[in-house]
Amino acid sequence: MPRLEFWYDLASNYSYLAAMRVEPMAARAGIDVVWRPFLLGPIFKAQGWNSSPFNLYPVKGRNMVRDMQRMCADRGLPFVLPDPFPANSLTAVRIAFLGEAEGWTARFSRAAFAVEFGEGANIADRATLDNVIARLGLDAVAIIARAQEDSVKDGLRQRTAEAQERGIFGAPSFITDTGELFWGDDRLEQAIAWARDARTQ
Amino acid sequence: MPRLEFWYDLASNYSYLAAMRVEPMAARAGIDVVWRPFLLGPIFKAQGWNSSPFNLYPVKGRNMVRDMQRMCADRGLPFVLPDPFPANSLTAVRIAFLGEAEGWTARFSRAAFAVEFGEGANIADRATLDNVIARLGLDAVAIIARAQEDSVKDGLRQRTAEAQERGIFGAPSFITDTGELFWGDDRLEQAIAWARDARTQ
Repeated sequence: MPRLEFWYDLASNYSYLAAMRVEPMAARAGIDVVWRPFLLGPIFKAQGWNSSPFNLYPVKGRNMVRDMQRMCADRGLPFVLPDPFPANSLTAVRIAFLGEAEGWTARFSRAAFAVEFGEGANIADRATLDNVIARLGLDAVAIIARAQEDSVKDGLRQRTAEAQERGIFGAPSFITDTGELFWGDDRLEQAIAWARDARTQ
Repeated sequence: MPRLEFWYDLASNYSYLAAMRVEPMAARAGIDVVWRPFLLGPIFKAQGWNSSPFNLYPVKGRNMVRDMQRMCADRGLPFVLPDPFPANSLTAVRIAFLGEAEGWTARFSRAAFAVEFGEGANIADRATLDNVIARLGLDAVAIIARAQEDSVKDGLRQRTAEAQERGIFGAPSFITDTGELFWGDDRLEQAIAWARDARTQ
């Protein structure tokens, strides 16, 4: 099966839009989705930004909120902008990274996105993470402890470095087997078509 | 008829994508398009940028070029990135502004976009502008002279100030009769649907 890598940060609102539709779209096209959680912070810092561009450019940020309201309404998704925005997603993304070896990264990520952008919960809060993990039928205490181990911290650091090496500058991003990089939920249809057809030009 | 304002700068590559499809899409929806040329430069300057974000953030800029190649291929449009990019569009945008009173702004803008992003021509060159205007059956010498008159300079300055007041931060942007602001060629379908239905929420 062709694969499509889905690169996202759990603090990223447009990644929420993509996470909620990528699996059924890929399934219809006969494509496997590879969930690739990473941290946007270091990528933004390399571009000279110490926060989200939606905070650095408030006019753009206000339109993003309105855009999210319209897009979520069209797709039947709830939307509440969390406060603070963006959330500190470090622990949540470490958990998502940890889940790859055990196969629950996608389920955890969708559940985290749902409470964050559907209900406005702060995914930096321990209680929020406890609830999200417990709802998956997993052991929150054990998982949060393991997410702080050096192997996870180092692995996620390497993952984020890989994102930068491969030209990722924002989230969500999609990479096909032929190395085509697509940026933004708006390019998900095109990314899936390119992955399905193994297009190179 | 409902109206949709189409705000664009002739140096903006994503405005090229929108300009080449907005009229047939709007016609099918029973909407009038109001072409609103303005200058992105002062808007970018207000956000602290002295050039296009595609130059300030080269990794993003490289992906934009690839994205344009893919999008133009999908839509059957030619694409050549002009050099320099972005072009100095001041005179061309003044000409487009001048054309509003005479009804040839849309035709001129499409013709300018076509040579700029379809062939890589520099729209700051007098010869390029001469050719574009002459192809419309208009008097290039007279029009370029009139585009330098104070009334045009002042009018375009006010137009650009209006863009900023109405929350425009990039191009293309679309504004419906109910004041909904959409940013980017990717939102053209949605903007047309909102304009057609006079949606407010």
